[in-house]
Amino acid sequence: MTALAAVVLCAGKGTRMKSEKAKVLHPILGRPLCAYPLKRALELGATHVVPVVGHQASEVEKSIRAHFPDAPLRFALQKEQRGTADAVKAAQDALKGHDGRVLILYGDVPLLRKETLQALLSAHDAAGGVLALVSTTLEDPTGYGRVIREGGKVARIVEHKDCTPEQRAVKECNAGIYSVDAAFLWKALAEIKPVNAQGEYYLTDLVEMAAKQGPVGAVDADATETAGVNDKVELAARARVLQQRINEAHMRAGVSIQDPATAYIEEGITIGTDTEVGPSVSLMAGTVIGKNVTIGQGSVLTASHVADGTHIKPYSVLEEARVGERCIIGPFSRLRPATELAEEVHLGNFVETKKARIGKGSKANHLTYLGDANIGAGCNIGAGTITCNYDGVNKHLTELGDGVFIGSDSQLVAPVKVGDGGYVGAGTTVTKNVPPGSLAVSRAPQVVKEGWVAAKKARQTKVKAG
Amino acid sequence: MTALAAVVLCAGKGTRMKSEKAKVLHPILGRPLCAYPLKRALELGATHVVPVVGHQASEVEKSIRAHFPDAPLRFALQKEQRGTADAVKAAQDALKGHDGRVLILYGDVPLLRKETLQALLSAHDAAGGVLALVSTTLEDPTGYGRVIREGGKVARIVEHKDCTPEQRAVKECNAGIYSVDAAFLWKALAEIKPVNAQGEYYLTDLVEMAAKQGPVGAVDADATETAGVNDKVELAARARVLQQRINEAHMRAGVSIQDPATAYIEEGITIGTDTEVGPSVSLMAGTVIGKNVTIGQGSVLTASHVADGTHIKPYSVLEEARVGERCIIGPFSRLRPATELAEEVHLGNFVETKKARIGKGSKANHLTYLGDANIGAGCNIGAGTITCNYDGVNKHLTELGDGVFIGSDSQLVAPVKVGDGGYVGAGTTVTKNVPPGSLAVSRAPQVVKEGWVAAKKARQTKVKAG
Amino acid sequence: MTALAAVVLCAGKGTRMKSEKAKVLHPILGRPLCAYPLKRALELGATHVVPVVGHQASEVEKSIRAHFPDAPLRFALQKEQRGTADAVKAAQDALKGHDGRVLILYGDVPLLRKETLQALLSAHDAAGGVLALVSTTLEDPTGYGRVIREGGKVARIVEHKDCTPEQRAVKECNAGIYSVDAAFLWKALAEIKPVNAQGEYYLTDLVEMAAKQGPVGAVDADATETAGVNDKVELAARARVLQQRINEAHMRAGVSIQDPATAYIEEGITIGTDTEVGPSVSLMAGTVIGKNVTIGQGSVLTASHVADGTHIKPYSVLEEARVGERCIIGPFSRLRPATELAEEVHLGNFVETKKARIGKGSKANHLTYLGDANIGAGCNIGAGTITCNYDGVNKHLTELGDGVFIGSDSQLVAPVKVGDGGYVGAGTTVTKNVPPGSLAVSRAPQVVKEGWVAAKKARQTKVKAG
Repeated sequence: MTALAAVVLCAGKGTRMKSEKAKVLHPILGRPLCAYPLKRALELGATHVVPVVGHQASEVEKSIRAHFPDAPLRFALQKEQRGTADAVKAAQDALKGHDGRVLILYGDVPLLRKETLQALLSAHDAAGGVLALVSTTLEDPTGYGRVIREGGKVARIVEHKDCTPEQRAVKECNAGIYSVDAAFLWKALAEIKPVNAQGEYYLTDLVEMAAKQGPVGAVDADATETAGVNDKVELAARARVLQQRINEAHMRAGVSIQDPATAYIEEGITIGTDTEVGPSVSLMAGTVIGKNVTIGQGSVLTASHVADGTHIKPYSVLEEARVGERCIIGPFSRLRPATELAEEVHLGNFVETKKARIGKGSKANHLTYLGDANIGAGCNIGAGTITCNYDGVNKHLTELGDGVFIGSDSQLVAPVKVGDGGYVGAGTTVTKNVPPGSLAVSRAPQVVKEGWVAAKKARQTKVKAG
Repeated sequence: MTALAAVVLCAGKGTRMKSEKAKVLHPILGRPLCAYPLKRALELGATHVVPVVGHQASEVEKSIRAHFPDAPLRFALQKEQRGTADAVKAAQDALKGHDGRVLILYGDVPLLRKETLQALLSAHDAAGGVLALVSTTLEDPTGYGRVIREGGKVARIVEHKDCTPEQRAVKECNAGIYSVDAAFLWKALAEIKPVNAQGEYYLTDLVEMAAKQGPVGAVDADATETAGVNDKVELAARARVLQQRINEAHMRAGVSIQDPATAYIEEGITIGTDTEVGPSVSLMAGTVIGKNVTIGQGSVLTASHVADGTHIKPYSVLEEARVGERCIIGPFSRLRPATELAEEVHLGNFVETKKARIGKGSKANHLTYLGDANIGAGCNIGAGTITCNYDGVNKHLTELGDGVFIGSDSQLVAPVKVGDGGYVGAGTTVTKNVPPGSLAVSRAPQVVKEGWVAAKKARQTKVKAG
Repeated sequence: MTALAAVVLCAGKGTRMKSEKAKVLHPILGRPLCAYPLKRALELGATHVVPVVGHQASEVEKSIRAHFPDAPLRFALQKEQRGTADAVKAAQDALKGHDGRVLILYGDVPLLRKETLQALLSAHDAAGGVLALVSTTLEDPTGYGRVIREGGKVARIVEHKDCTPEQRAVKECNAGIYSVDAAFLWKALAEIKPVNAQGEYYLTDLVEMAAKQGPVGAVDADATETAGVNDKVELAARARVLQQRINEAHMRAGVSIQDPATAYIEEGITIGTDTEVGPSVSLMAGTVIGKNVTIGQGSVLTASHVADGTHIKPYSVLEEARVGERCIIGPFSRLRPATELAEEVHLGNFVETKKARIGKGSKANHLTYLGDANIGAGCNIGAGTITCNYDGVNKHLTELGDGVFIGSDSQLVAPVKVGDGGYVGAGTTVTKNVPPGSLAVSRAPQVVKEGWVAAKKARQTKVKAG
């Protein structure tokens, strides 16, 4: 196979985004726009991928490196915005030594599919020339460059404004996406002339030059794939198409999605068969869901793992959490980073965990905060339990053995341990370790003052009267 | 009226569902697919309804029995999947003695309306023959069996692949849904020949046989009604149509639904006029809502009753709860089974109830757990109150009289009672009964150590320096 | 410029709404239907706006006055429902002395844009006659009155049922919205004859009368703009169009809306650039959002201000709250009226505030209720802290200085103060003021009973055996 490199144009400002952020950094389903074409290039096996950056170059580079820490990236800088040909030319140095093909992609065209790019490469192979392009057939091609064919063969691209009436009737439009032989590319780019008074150099001239060298391949793609993003209305519209595409793939693979219009699932999330995803669920940042999991309405999972058979009830928010098999979580559970639940753990409403390891079958069902805690198996954590992990300066660890019972509204003032089978009475402030099998309680005796309420009322009436 | 029976084909595996669950058990708006045609048959007054089961026969039977506990069901088993005619034939024994009509329906065609089936029966009556069918007119009928008419009368069904060019132009397609005279049906089924090498028997042959006996009735239904479910993309698509249909009916009857695209209301839910349903609300499992109720954004109600004039604020989750008139619930209230609220009860944010009866006008507005509790009228339950209903072995009851005031962060260690007008001081652990009109408090005296903070800091600095 | 008045017809019952509420009071994105045309009239600079009320006249008047407290409103009463001409005539007295133009609008036509009405007034100017109308071109005009032109000029309106076959082919329909010279209007109205046995008087006759006086102006509007509301299905449909229009305007101005189909943003809300709005977010009642704010999934903001750079995590509910710059709120925070947060305040999960001023950088991250509280800067409020602001009769204030540390699960029994740098131990009931720099603690000593658990089990076993 011919060696493949990719140039991804990421230099534009995107004025119509009305943003202080570079256009290609705007997120779409949890990732910057440019992450999509970059990912496609990597999936196709590109040995070098050159993001051409310009506007906010360092922020764009930083974001791309963060999303693709191990990718074979070489950044190129386009100093001025002088058209697409100029942008590609900026990548020449970065691709010195690469003598295969160069795929030309756009950082603001996020929906192009891997399959379409594979078809582009195949069309390049089949035609046997120096270039292949992606075209899109549009019912109303007004404004687009037309793919002009002669004797059925691609001859050149003609911009809308330069079209003859006959050419205007052509519906095959140029999407601007190319596979080009590197040797031809650099030579041809050197010959492209500026197209306007601003001195902008456009790639479309490449096509006619390539057609003189040999047959130009072409592959037709759906307009939804080749559409770019120019403002935030288009950003949202592209997100919806992407969302639909991702959700349909999951459904065909056996995931039940109750309302695909409100399931926000990032690209590349793993979900097991027979898992049910409720309305308004978000699954983000590499979350992995097992089989037969139920994810209730409105839950938001970020960078979390959920094992088979677990039931997440509505409005649970998980972040960097690991949940074992057959757990029951929520509604209104909030699992923060470094939560690790074994099997069959139950966390209920208004329960928060953070840096908490919880053993098999333990339960904390109500109004509880478990932070910096190691909890054994089979524990019962009463309503209103709070680990006091912070003394105003440092964080400390709470450790519970197996089979511990914590009475409601207790505070575990860390560092503190409760041994296996320990029992803490309701309302206790646990400041010292509790040995295994022991009861701990700190409780002032209950005092009852009969008639107090009537006396108080009399007092208050008196005050008001006074 | 002619006696009516129904056969509902529920035997298929549904390979494309990619599921370990039989196809007809996949839920759509809270019910298994097959519950819809079964319900339609019962609504039409079918005296016998025969689900023909096959794949996962016992699970399917169990689920159907659970959904229709009192229905006149007779299950039939199709041992091998040998086509629709074979499936109907499996029902013959179950319908021994029935000499009226047999409606043939499909467990994976959930959207067929009662009105359409009534029209089918009327068409059967009007034609006066032995069979009537439901047809669907499709712009692109490719792949569907065509309804072939001769002199305007239905003559037979011809499969797409067997069509002449003229027949291919026919857009009236067979939906496979029939009303058939029982006597003719069993006789005809015995004569149907297998259609392919796999030995499958198809019902379509019935039509030509029936046309020889007398006029075949036909009723045209919209394609959305007759569409089946083959994979989970189609499952979600059918759910959306059903949802739209249900929501429009509620709106026409006087219910305000802010965003019908995100209101998930099961079939058969009762909702009073002038009730307002916010976005992302789910109403499930026989929930009943009164008039002038407001159901805030994101609330999830399951098997609950809400009386007139109640305001449910956003993100309230109710399950098997009964809420009286003019209550105020939420946001973030969680009412679990056997919660019973009288009129004008207020439950606020982060409040959970379970097996709790609460009297008129009582309030628990913040961070509270009320489980296994009988609470009188006019009580004020302070923030952070917790009923300690579980001692690690058994559950116990908390009883409050009328007009009780529970100070914040108190624990009611059940079994325990607070008499009418009793007053519990903040932070009290109530372990003994509180007589009416009495104050109960358990509180260690507040100790103040002046200068302690500076000393502590000095200590901590020393440790760090050490 | 000619003086402008507006008559807005708000008298109808709206039988098909199936409601006890007058039609024009039904809300659409947080406001009554009639608020939209009234607002448009005011935006155009109408010096007098006359809502013509009838059904539930006093409720409609009250609601309109509440929405437009300072507007130049004069209410007119239509005693009987006798057609649109009769309704406009009811406004004549209220407009005595106005000798400019009268805009005729409908309380149940909410989507008409200001730009369209400006075009109507310009068309009136340009034509130079006594009337201009809004028309709508419909593919299927069945049922609508047609705009009949002679020699290109508007000559009259002909009702569908009275159309000749030629006139039926006309697709330009009358939307019923007019700009009319006052002098002509009152004179013409006096001459309009009832159109039917019910004695109803329709405005359409005005057009022919006006055409005899001079050229009639016309402006074509999209059908989505001129559509009325007759039932709750249409109410929801209009809401969706309005929502889409509002959201697109925000997006074009630089607001990122992840899913515009589920962002419920009232008309007239201010949102800064680069703010990100998650799915299922509601922004209501004059909420103002700064720049670079993130509003997480499912949050509901009512009449609140959020300053630049603040991050609101999912499922936060704010009402009449003011949030400073760079705060972090939620998930599951609930900010009630008169919450005022300085910069960099953190409020976390299951935290409620009400009448609470919180100083710069203070944190209350878990399970807390802060009501009637003034809190300084740099405080740390532990999990489970509760201000006991209510003694059953009155509400009292809690005051914390700067740099205060409140240990978990403490109760602050108001009125009470903790001085600067004060430290409250976990589980303390603070009933007396805490001097600056002091420790306060109320805690019964922790008692440990070894072997207690085994003994208890033995006891319980005995009971069961007994």
